[in-house]
Amino acid sequence: MSRTSHAFPIVVSGPSGVGKTTLVDRLLAADPLVRRSVSVTTRTPRPGEVDGRDYLFVTPERFEAMKAGELIEWAEVHGETYGTPRSYIESTLAAGHDVVLNIDIQGGDQVKGSFPGALMVFILPPSLAALEARLQGRGDVSGQVLAVRLANARVELEAASRYEYLIVNDDLGSASAELIAIAAAERARRERKTRDFLKRLEK
Amino acid sequence: MSRTSHAFPIVVSGPSGVGKTTLVDRLLAADPLVRRSVSVTTRTPRPGEVDGRDYLFVTPERFEAMKAGELIEWAEVHGETYGTPRSYIESTLAAGHDVVLNIDIQGGDQVKGSFPGALMVFILPPSLAALEARLQGRGDVSGQVLAVRLANARVELEAASRYEYLIVNDDLGSASAELIAIAAAERARRERKTRDFLKRLEK
Repeated sequence: MSRTSHAFPIVVSGPSGVGKTTLVDRLLAADPLVRRSVSVTTRTPRPGEVDGRDYLFVTPERFEAMKAGELIEWAEVHGETYGTPRSYIESTLAAGHDVVLNIDIQGGDQVKGSFPGALMVFILPPSLAALEARLQGRGDVSGQVLAVRLANARVELEAASRYEYLIVNDDLGSASAELIAIAAAERARRERKTRDFLKRLEK
Repeated sequence: MSRTSHAFPIVVSGPSGVGKTTLVDRLLAADPLVRRSVSVTTRTPRPGEVDGRDYLFVTPERFEAMKAGELIEWAEVHGETYGTPRSYIESTLAAGHDVVLNIDIQGGDQVKGSFPGALMVFILPPSLAALEARLQGRGDVSGQVLAVRLANARVELEAASRYEYLIVNDDLGSASAELIAIAAAERARRERKTRDFLKRLEK
């Protein structure tokens, strides 16, 4: 089935621990028009992560080389570098798929700069206290890392005002339903419709 | 549960016969936050229509009196007059419910004028030929009425470019899913969030 709207990147940002990964997974499971952006990173794979599916795991040397034109954005997060390969996004959009990016606020800004039609969604915790509890519950962080992440979270939350959509993840079911609805609704926005579609209406 | 977004009118327009009534019914059935706007009209009830639920059926004299301040908009459609009582919409929004209005393009413009936050959705037929087939299939229209409606449909379709969302009703299931998604997504838009909600994020 051919689309009546241009495909677009979907930027999903929010503080560490807010549940972005799960929400993005649910969007991907529910919406066959959406594909995942695969980031490149210098960090070590976590248990269960697969190279090429979850991330492209590269050496710092290779990452440096990619910065010369192959990446839309890159950023250091918690001491590791992450980047978004431009060619993957462009070819996925061209194939008619929206591309979802789980990405920090600086990266989100850069994606928006490269793709002005990018859909900007920010995921919020019910409260900072709830976020802290989640980060501690995850069990893979030291007290020092936790403190850094909470400080980062405060900075990230201030950026929420630059995003078009705000989702509070206090209930996973309703938060994922909101994200799925947002992607579907955006395809019905007039300004996303293709010229071919709009022309058809004139007949 | 208290809302985190301001309630808003949902204007659903589109040419006669395009399926607006069914789509609005499905939105109402699926989304407990949405209420129907009850219009006032001078036309005769169709079989099954209930006064006060489907329309307020009034005499031309009463309708004239209501035009002096009680109606957001009124319009003549196919020789009968329809209007939207302002008080019903205002009180329903104040109670935290979005109000859906199945309304023509002139009425939609007037609602948008009174409520700048109104969500504007236009329903399109797959083609004019498909619309004609539907209008004939409904069986309650003469050849002359049909010709008038088709001429009106062409005018209405030109107005689609003023609406924020365009839904093609070529499949009732997907069209109603789109309308339901649009209403849900709009509640997550930052500019619709209440001040109380945005303040909470600053803590």
